Amino acid sequence: MTAQSFPPAVFQSFEEKADPKNVAPRLAALRAAMAKAGVDGFLIPRADAHRGESVPPSEARLAYITGFTGSAGVALVGAKKAALFVDSRYTLQAPAQTDTKKITVIQTESRGIAAEARNYVPKGGTIAYDPWLHTPGEVRDITAMLDGHATMVPSANLVDSIWKDRPGAPVSPIEFLGHNRAGKTAPDKIAEIQASLAADGADAGVLTLPESICWLFNMRGRDVPNTPYVLGFAIVPKKGLPTLYLDPAKITDDIRKALDGVAKLSSSKSLPEALARLGKGSKAVLIDPATAPESVATALKDAGAKLIEKRDPVLLPKSRKNDAELAGMREAHKLDGVALAKFLAWFDDAAPKGGLTETGIVTALEAFRREEETCVDASFDTISGAGPNGAIVHYRVTNKTDRVLNPGEIMLVDSGAQYLSGTTDITRTMSTGKPSDEQRDRFTRVLKGMVAISMARFPKGTSGAQIDVLARQFLWQAGVTYNHGTGHGVGAYLGVHEGPIGISSRYTMPLEIGNVISNEPGFYKAGEYGIRIENLITVVPSAGFDGYLEFETITLAPIDRGLIRKSMLTEAERAWIDAYHRRVWKEIGPLVKGKVKDWLKDATEEL
Amino acid sequence: MTAQSFPPAVFQSFEEKADPKNVAPRLAALRAAMAKAGVDGFLIPRADAHRGESVPPSEARLAYITGFTGSAGVALVGAKKAALFVDSRYTLQAPAQTDTKKITVIQTESRGIAAEARNYVPKGGTIAYDPWLHTPGEVRDITAMLDGHATMVPSANLVDSIWKDRPGAPVSPIEFLGHNRAGKTAPDKIAEIQASLAADGADAGVLTLPESICWLFNMRGRDVPNTPYVLGFAIVPKKGLPTLYLDPAKITDDIRKALDGVAKLSSSKSLPEALARLGKGSKAVLIDPATAPESVATALKDAGAKLIEKRDPVLLPKSRKNDAELAGMREAHKLDGVALAKFLAWFDDAAPKGGLTETGIVTALEAFRREEETCVDASFDTISGAGPNGAIVHYRVTNKTDRVLNPGEIMLVDSGAQYLSGTTDITRTMSTGKPSDEQRDRFTRVLKGMVAISMARFPKGTSGAQIDVLARQFLWQAGVTYNHGTGHGVGAYLGVHEGPIGISSRYTMPLEIGNVISNEPGFYKAGEYGIRIENLITVVPSAGFDGYLEFETITLAPIDRGLIRKSMLTEAERAWIDAYHRRVWKEIGPLVKGKVKDWLKDATEEL
Repeated sequence: MTAQSFPPAVFQSFEEKADPKNVAPRLAALRAAMAKAGVDGFLIPRADAHRGESVPPSEARLAYITGFTGSAGVALVGAKKAALFVDSRYTLQAPAQTDTKKITVIQTESRGIAAEARNYVPKGGTIAYDPWLHTPGEVRDITAMLDGHATMVPSANLVDSIWKDRPGAPVSPIEFLGHNRAGKTAPDKIAEIQASLAADGADAGVLTLPESICWLFNMRGRDVPNTPYVLGFAIVPKKGLPTLYLDPAKITDDIRKALDGVAKLSSSKSLPEALARLGKGSKAVLIDPATAPESVATALKDAGAKLIEKRDPVLLPKSRKNDAELAGMREAHKLDGVALAKFLAWFDDAAPKGGLTETGIVTALEAFRREEETCVDASFDTISGAGPNGAIVHYRVTNKTDRVLNPGEIMLVDSGAQYLSGTTDITRTMSTGKPSDEQRDRFTRVLKGMVAISMARFPKGTSGAQIDVLARQFLWQAGVTYNHGTGHGVGAYLGVHEGPIGISSRYTMPLEIGNVISNEPGFYKAGEYGIRIENLITVVPSAGFDGYLEFETITLAPIDRGLIRKSMLTEAERAWIDAYHRRVWKEIGPLVKGKVKDWLKDATEEL
Repeated sequence: MTAQSFPPAVFQSFEEKADPKNVAPRLAALRAAMAKAGVDGFLIPRADAHRGESVPPSEARLAYITGFTGSAGVALVGAKKAALFVDSRYTLQAPAQTDTKKITVIQTESRGIAAEARNYVPKGGTIAYDPWLHTPGEVRDITAMLDGHATMVPSANLVDSIWKDRPGAPVSPIEFLGHNRAGKTAPDKIAEIQASLAADGADAGVLTLPESICWLFNMRGRDVPNTPYVLGFAIVPKKGLPTLYLDPAKITDDIRKALDGVAKLSSSKSLPEALARLGKGSKAVLIDPATAPESVATALKDAGAKLIEKRDPVLLPKSRKNDAELAGMREAHKLDGVALAKFLAWFDDAAPKGGLTETGIVTALEAFRREEETCVDASFDTISGAGPNGAIVHYRVTNKTDRVLNPGEIMLVDSGAQYLSGTTDITRTMSTGKPSDEQRDRFTRVLKGMVAISMARFPKGTSGAQIDVLARQFLWQAGVTYNHGTGHGVGAYLGVHEGPIGISSRYTMPLEIGNVISNEPGFYKAGEYGIRIENLITVVPSAGFDGYLEFETITLAPIDRGLIRKSMLTEAERAWIDAYHRRVWKEIGPLVKGKVKDWLKDATEEL
């Protein structure tokens, strides 16, 4: 079996979708619209009103204008010049996708635009923006940065006004989770959120994040790639039925029936009026300043509402997965473990023979996952880094960058899937020959860090920020580190990245029972190789240790023992790795057969 | 040799200085003064205008009125009732020292007064306070807590008005550090602070902390116990000579000569006028809102100054000890190591025979330290906890609480000294017989944490908050922890506790080369025993690891090997302990003789 014999990838595309030739005419059309509107600049963020990592084609304005398809960035189009601001992940991809004669790519440290923005509009000019696509805080920050140079003015979206053949808004079927999957009814969840709104002194809350809305109403959809979102908004009063605002095309009789007695349904077009009604009489309305569009805040304020700016009240309850959600996540990880066993067995056989490509490896992995019919999507584009490409932390392979994996090189594969039962995210790093001493040393240090988190026990109230160093300490001893967080939250058949908990110095919230997070230290040697080992873990009470918590690992796939230097492990670390492999064999072994089973038996042997 | 044969302790007193009988008449006199001044309440904090841990007798107003001599607390005296607010360290000591029929002791979570304060003054009443003894932030917080119930009014100090036989302000001799000790001239330090003021946009800065003033002018004194402070104030303009404000009795010809060309000298009584002059013409003046008295802020604001509220600009430079200061600290720790070797040798012989007392142990340790004539003070009152008293984290032994150490019990001694060369702070926990399995387990976990910090390597920019868990991880594995920070900053022949760096979740500043901090994890079993092991460590570049830092341990005293369970140590930990003991032997061995030398040889043997 070779990589070529797999069915083509359907979840992931390797195309550079952009055509830089489109940039010039589209910029010209936009500038004409700007001139007509009497503004000197227009801001085009990657985000839609729902702030997800993925946006539907109808919201891909940044890609339409600039060609750039990365997951974060913002363009500022002036009358003569234009800039595209991207973070360090996209400093290679952005110039490759856009027309750099027409658009200057500028790297920013944080996401957003930088001080250079002022060079793109005249002093005293105006920069227009779509207030559905920016939070009030973003607008405030940009205004502060412009420091009087230009004025920010809300406006209709000028891109939409010139976008020919703009795709329609997504209208994917809505599914409702059975109680065996959701574990808590929507009315019970709504009552919990209503109690939290009342405790915050709010008469109502406005939800703008699809992850919150999907969780609250136990529904899922296919409006965007990778994440089973239904795009929409909701207003939750502190008492009585919430209202769900959806594209009218989604509101079928079936949906009405499913939500009968749970929520009222309304067209998303009526949201502005609803906000205006809600704000009347100085009602106290909670919005999340980090994610709510300025339009929502403005509509409420104009109507006289008192805004309560607090974190979306769904985020914390959602991060505490209940037993049914955890059962689903464990089930998904068994299915994923089977796909990984098949994939790793195939890889171990094929890679040393040579000729595998990064895209071929993605295709193979996807094919093994799709053998399980409840696998409905990838949870993100697979990071498939052969040799030196493994050192590019956010590498996304395209037909242009595709690289042959040479026997002897190290291969890093970071991937995940959406099963109907749950979301997965796993990284494995594999040798394809005899790794160097340095590679084994670094791999073992990364592994020791991953195991230190896996074995950690900590008192209630401990945050991810506090334990982060456990994953880094062994790399630090060698004078090296990794420039990314150790872990991020993961949704239950929802977003593969979700807040507000995780493991890195920025996650100062206490870890709580039911949190599902990734545990993924790494090491990257630019131009040579990359190593990352990632399991998902969930926070559980520490049996026998009152007031203490620990992690249960839910990812089930062998770790390449050929990359481990056994002499660097403590007895406890070695025991953990052996026990983990025994568990992988016990849980996945019965689900595979033939050569895969033989391979898995070997791969999970004691060190 | 027994404990009784030691000369009496002079640095530390075991008296309960308070006499509760004084409380009633003094409260009556204060209330008469309050009535005359027309106020309903008066606040009496422990702090003086300089916010040190120790205050001179002339500033011990809280003790004068309430009898309570702890290092933090505040009393609110109303017309009929009075309350004394203390933190959890003092919930036993405060009621023992004050007259609880006249004063209610209330435990507060943070330092300061609590919401109950409103019960001590009538609604609509006034609470007077001395604005030299409170920061504007404190007054703001209390005002917010009173929530309109009563009004805070600045006032002359009513305690001073009724204090008969009030001691005079301290006028200790001022010594100037030689360049071999200071390592940097006062003019060079002043230039550094002036550059920092200019960078902050300040025309001048006002220094109110004696630690800052002593460091800046390379001077030391004996105005308060435990810390070689000269009490005073300074105004540092961004250009030109700073002015030092001292008690006129301190300004001798010698002092004038020593500061000639370095600083102008003025009476501390003239500070208010100087602040008024400084503020004129809308000058921008930096004060530290965490420590500057409200009087300073008010005088500046009233004169029209623009206040720049920033951290005292001396604190960070002072925390980065230079080579001369570090050489002094290392020298002090050699001297302290000699005293500790003598003390521990004596203890090891005497304790198993029985009859030692907590006060006797303090006296013995102090006597051994005083054999070195450059030992001028204790750096704090020794915590001498026998058996269950070791579990009281901030225990201070008095004649009333003094306890006999029974053979077989564990003894915790946390002590430090001020040598002319530097400041020490060390905790050792000693067995006096056969420790229990649990005690050895807990001691070894504490030790493993202490060693983990000692061996840590970390990239520049890492904070104490990030590495704190390294010290706790092994205790957490057993489902236990300690409720104090892992480490605090230590001054170079200055305060034994200094900011702004340390090791605990509240120290988020990056650790920097030259920082000296304590490394002191512990374990406390209430009613049974306490364990703490404390060394001082300093941050040094990690040779061969570019961009990385590590710690050098500067404390030199054996760790009781009888409490270590060797099987719980990794090879690296064991190697660290053996190397540390080899170093103690190598550095202290040549400085002791006879039985002490024999004991030290044994005590530093390999595990």
